[in-house]
Parts: sequence; structure tokens; C-alpha cells
Amino acid sequence: MKLAMVDDRILHLEDLEPPYLDHETFFGDGVYEVVRSYEGRIFVIEEHLRRFADNLDAIGITGVDMELIRSRVLGAFEAADIANAKIYFHITRGSAPRNHVAEADLKPDFFLTITELEDDTEAKTNGIAVSTHPDWRWKRCDIKSLNLLPNVLARQDAAKKGCAEAILVDEAGLITEGAGSAFIAIFGQTLQTAPLTANILPSITRNFVIKAAENIGLQVVEKSLTAQQASTADEVFIAYTTLDILPVVKFDDNVIGDGKPGKYVKLLIREFRTFTV
Amino acid sequence: MKLAMVDDRILHLEDLEPPYLDHETFFGDGVYEVVRSYEGRIFVIEEHLRRFADNLDAIGITGVDMELIRSRVLGAFEAADIANAKIYFHITRGSAPRNHVAEADLKPDFFLTITELEDDTEAKTNGIAVSTHPDWRWKRCDIKSLNLLPNVLARQDAAKKGCAEAILVDEAGLITEGAGSAFIAIFGQTLQTAPLTANILPSITRNFVIKAAENIGLQVVEKSLTAQQASTADEVFIAYTTLDILPVVKFDDNVIGDGKPGKYVKLLIREFRTFTV
Repeated sequence: MKLAMVDDRILHLEDLEPPYLDHETFFGDGVYEVVRSYEGRIFVIEEHLRRFADNLDAIGITGVDMELIRSRVLGAFEAADIANAKIYFHITRGSAPRNHVAEADLKPDFFLTITELEDDTEAKTNGIAVSTHPDWRWKRCDIKSLNLLPNVLARQDAAKKGCAEAILVDEAGLITEGAGSAFIAIFGQTLQTAPLTANILPSITRNFVIKAAENIGLQVVEKSLTAQQASTADEVFIAYTTLDILPVVKFDDNVIGDGKPGKYVKLLIREFRTFTV
Repeated sequence: MKLAMVDDRILHLEDLEPPYLDHETFFGDGVYEVVRSYEGRIFVIEEHLRRFADNLDAIGITGVDMELIRSRVLGAFEAADIANAKIYFHITRGSAPRNHVAEADLKPDFFLTITELEDDTEAKTNGIAVSTHPDWRWKRCDIKSLNLLPNVLARQDAAKKGCAEAILVDEAGLITEGAGSAFIAIFGQTLQTAPLTANILPSITRNFVIKAAENIGLQVVEKSLTAQQASTADEVFIAYTTLDILPVVKFDDNVIGDGKPGKYVKLLIREFRTFTV
């Protein structure tokens, strides 16, 4: 008799609720997106949907109707009625007994949550501390997948050190990105961040940061940094969808600049705002 | 209002069934084991429980009562009443709204399935074909975690090529292991497999294979192989809990030996059997 057990409850395998047998449960076999709204409008949803479609394709989940996904995201956003919302959604390969090789007719599962987002004024005003951690992630971090255990472990390590983000350093000693953010440094009037070839996510927020940097007259260099180089930068910040730009004022044990968000990061935050209104 | 959406169904976040908010769902944040029984007896359950405890510890899931886990596994096995059973179980960090850094009081979740296992006589008698794939996995494959997307992608690639397993090759051109198995080659009277330092799982079946090899007089060398070296081996096989030893007779486009399971792999299968009765 095929059985399952959820904590102390024994039941027939057939009676399990679907999510227990989902590919995400056994394998993290899915991809996700996070979008946010500013004052009632979702920011660059088309870019996110395009990346989502690319990621589905990259892991071979086929037959997803992207128009349906768009209408679900918009429908849920309307139903939630939250002006500044964080919208998380993922698609997984589908629900079936555990098998690495899915049946061809498996139906992909969609899941979404919407929660209210509060801007972290404290972090934006005073900056955050970050700590470095070895980059233990897989070799396809260009795909925004549900395999996030290395990110969880790095963030937990950072939290123990009183830091808000973990900055990942690869085996060559180069910074790739944050556990959940792009990592960017400023030297003089030059903004520097890892190239997209460096096993990092093609971050949509990073694109807009680069645009903002060009708008305010900074030179942009896409070149990886060592932790040592980053710690001596004039300004440092992280960028991600949820809170766009957060200044970094402490990098491991090193104070960045004078320990307060610098001139250019403040200008970038202001410039970024012009995109979102 | 906090909302969730499961396919087309919109509901309050609070009304979601727990697994939808589990850390495994968002992050693959958990570890697992597979044990099997031979004719009514679970094979080396203590070794598996020890590794499981080590893995929980490695990712910082604390407060799990291993006696309770043992009694759940044994209880489910008794309830299922299957002589040759495959028992899968995992523990995840627990169920909570998505956050990389879990609350300290999060209660880990236990999940188990038992299914009947049929020995694959065809594969054992005639051997299987395998194909190589880049090893895209994370850098802590000593931990048996739920982050298995690279394994899924490699296995799917193998399946497309008509192969039963994907053999993973790292950036240095060395074989680490199979997507779900240890990889072992025989040259003359020497059995060769990657050392446990090579970002591979400390496979329990591998331990027993080494013991069996020593029992039948083979020399054992723990040294990584290139794909080229493996393709010219006298014999090749994979080893994993579910089916213990499966001879490999085709490695990418290369026929191994005379295309049939060799002398030593057959002896190893017989010797392994003495451990399980």
C-alpha cells in the first residue's frame, strides 16, 4: 500500500494535497519573479514577464500561456487593492510522484502571493551593513530558480552578524552579487558592477540603476570587483526590485566612505524614483 | 489585504494550506533521505539517520528529535506492509511567509512517502546507457538538500538521449558523480571512484560498494576520472540506495567492454546482496 506521512499523520499517497507532491517540493523545480507596485501601478511588469518566460524556457517548462499569467497577476493585484504591493509568483513543473524526469503531460502549477510593502526609510536614510559569504550557488544563476538554499544560508549568516544582506564571493575571490540583490560600487565618478556573464541574474533593477547612473553623468563599468576593492569604494549599494536602492555603509568590518550614504547613491535613489512615478 | 493565488483560485494568505508556504516551496530549504527495505527489513537505517542528522545540522535546522524521526519511519514502514519498499523522507525549515531568514521558533516539517520497489532486472542483467552533462550543482553537494534542479535538468537531458542516468562533469573536466548516484569505474583489478572531497555526496551505497570490492579482492583507488578515462574503462557502474548497483554498458557514444555487464560488476552485485539479507 502506498503511504505518505505528514508529521505524525499517515495517509494514502492518493489523498495527499497536491502541493506535497509538487516538483518544487522535491526538487525546487520551478522559477519565480517578484514585482512591485508604486502607488497603485506595477513597475515594468513586461520586463519581468519576459524574463519569467525566458526562465521557464531555460528549464524546459513548456506550454505556459503568458497572457494568462499576466491576467492572473493583474487580477490578483486588483483584488488585493494595495497601492505599494510586493507580488511574488512562481511556476513549477507540476504535481506528480517524485521522479526527476517528469511526464510530458505534467501540468505546470502557478502560485502567487501579494503583501503590502513598506519602504525601509531607515535603511535608505542611514544605510545598511553587509557581510561577505562564499558563493555556494549553482552555475546557472542567470535563471531565477527556486533552488535558493545557498542564498538562505548566506542570508542567515549575514543576519547572525547583524547584516541585512550577504555579498557572495566566488572561488576566484570576485563578488558576483548579493544573496537577493545586485551589488554596485562607486569609485570617483565611476559606477562599477559585475558583468552579466559572471553567473549572476540579469537584474531588471540593475538595468534601471545603470540608466539612472548615466542620467546623472556617472561612467558605468561592468567589471567584477574583489571584496578588498569593494571595501575601499567611495560608495556602495545594493539594488533589487522590492526596495530598489539601499546604500551600504558597512562592508564586513570596513566603514564605507564616512559611514553615511554618499552623494551619488542619494542622487541615484532620487533619479530612480523618476522611473517609478 | 494579503492575498494568495493558486492557479486561478484567489484566497486569503491565511487560508493557504501549510505546504504552500513551506520553506521547501520557496527555497528548497530542507534535506532528505531515501532508504529501502529488502524483504521486509530496512537496509542500514542507522547510517541514513546519522547522515540525515548531519545534514540538518549543516543547514542549521535544529531541534529535530531523531528518535521521533526513527519511530516515524519505522511506523510508516510497518503500516505500509511492503517487503521491498522505497522510503523517501525530508525535513524542511518550516512553514511561514517567504523570508530567507526564518524566525527562530519555526517548527521543522516532516514528510515521507513509501512506495513499492521493483528491482530492475533488465537493467541489472543488460546494463544501462549513461550520458555526460556539465555539473551545474552548488558547491555543497556533500549536503543531501532539496535543491535538485540541476539534477533534474541533467536527468532530463539524459532521458532525451535515451539514457538512464546523467554523469556530471565539473569545470575541470572531472566526473563528480551521477545526478542521483555514485559513479564507479574498474580498470583491470582496480576500482576507481571520485574522493569524497570532490563536492559529492558521502554515499552510503558507495561505502558498501567499496567494502564489497575489497571482499572480492579488488584494489580501491579514490581519485577523480575524466570522461575520456571513464569511457575507456573495462567496466563502469553506478550505485545508489534504490537499486544498489547498475552496470553501465554505454557511456555517451562509447561502448564499455563488450557491451555487456563485466565480470567484476556481476561479482559486486552478488557480494552486495550478502550485506542486504
